[in-house]
Amino acid sequence: MRQRSETIVVSTRRGLTEITGAVRAAVRAAGVQQGLATVFIRHTSASLVIQENADPAVCRDLEAFLSRLVRDGDPLFTHVEEGDDDMSAHVKAALLKTAEQIPIVDGELALGTWQGIYVWEHRAGSQRRQVVLHVLGETPGGGRG
Amino acid sequence: MRQRSETIVVSTRRGLTEITGAVRAAVRAAGVQQGLATVFIRHTSASLVIQENADPAVCRDLEAFLSRLVRDGDPLFTHVEEGDDDMSAHVKAALLKTAEQIPIVDGELALGTWQGIYVWEHRAGSQRRQVVLHVLGETPGGGRG
Amino acid sequence: MRQRSETIVVSTRRGLTEITGAVRAAVRAAGVQQGLATVFIRHTSASLVIQENADPAVCRDLEAFLSRLVRDGDPLFTHVEEGDDDMSAHVKAALLKTAEQIPIVDGELALGTWQGIYVWEHRAGSQRRQVVLHVLGETPGGGRG
Repeated sequence: MRQRSETIVVSTRRGLTEITGAVRAAVRAAGVQQGLATVFIRHTSASLVIQENADPAVCRDLEAFLSRLVRDGDPLFTHVEEGDDDMSAHVKAALLKTAEQIPIVDGELALGTWQGIYVWEHRAGSQRRQVVLHVLGETPGGGRG
Repeated sequence: MRQRSETIVVSTRRGLTEITGAVRAAVRAAGVQQGLATVFIRHTSASLVIQENADPAVCRDLEAFLSRLVRDGDPLFTHVEEGDDDMSAHVKAALLKTAEQIPIVDGELALGTWQGIYVWEHRAGSQRRQVVLHVLGETPGGGRG
Repeated sequence: MRQRSETIVVSTRRGLTEITGAVRAAVRAAGVQQGLATVFIRHTSASLVIQENADPAVCRDLEAFLSRLVRDGDPLFTHVEEGDDDMSAHVKAALLKTAEQIPIVDGELALGTWQGIYVWEHRAGSQRRQVVLHVLGETPGGGRG
């Protein structure tokens, strides 16, 4: 059984930024044929999501819906010191995913045809986000590597 | 350490379709005593959820709530070419889960008494959905299998 | 490759109860240096979430937002036998997480500076919740343990 983990830094702005290529590269670097990839974001105001990567309008509509559901500056919020987009970002992150798992089959992520892996930024400004890519599994020879 | 993965096809219609039996069968087929089961859906308009499998009214109420929260044909949506239920389905999938993990203890999924594993279909029509079942762990003898 | 799993019982009331310390302790008890920790809650009316553990107002605002989004006693609900807070609790649990995964790097959970792991109780009264902590990975010597 082989393992490999690395932390990548992703430059983001509000909305979705695709990282599928980086996750694919991590699987190849690990040389794992059968296993499990885990993606983990080390933040509480940004998320991960697996969504359609064909029509960019899908990503825009996702962001528009979420920002209407969870409004910046909602008067309900008491944690307001860091600006109108801070507590809304925490709520969005709580509703979405901090970790995603994708099985690895025949050396490739078992994603469907239209699935891409995204960081979803919830703060209004540009950010740099740390994402841990962890790969676990068997190499072609079955050795521990 | 042993691994096993398979892709099953699940016939769905809008709402929840239970797949607990198929996940249990995959764990038994792998012969794993201690480990981790990962369920992954290869789509962006259907989800996974672990919810109560006792009273069917729970599943109906879940679907009713979600379809009121995320309305088909919401005028906010710009990705509209595939019908009124398409972008709403993407939003629902983004809010719910693409992958679920369940530890395996003593050869069984560590589900609580009332927990079942479901595919949650978000499109209005019947669909056939691919779900990857991945099992990783130790066999009774501790061998690699 | 080493594995360890245990089930802890967490006393909760509505809102967030931090369990980061218990997950850290499980990782140390397993002696794993590189690997994957899985946290799984065996209930359908309580959830897991990874969120900010610095300002307690964040947790209060998360609870306030979620309980406004999903109201106790919503007239939409037909599963009402167990009280006004029962079906709302199922909806909240479906929207949030039943499992969380955190990579283990250099013997520690790869959490960001502000991330804590929480049980999020959705029922109105006090509860005792079972949470499975599963740790998988390599020990310092690389042995199977």
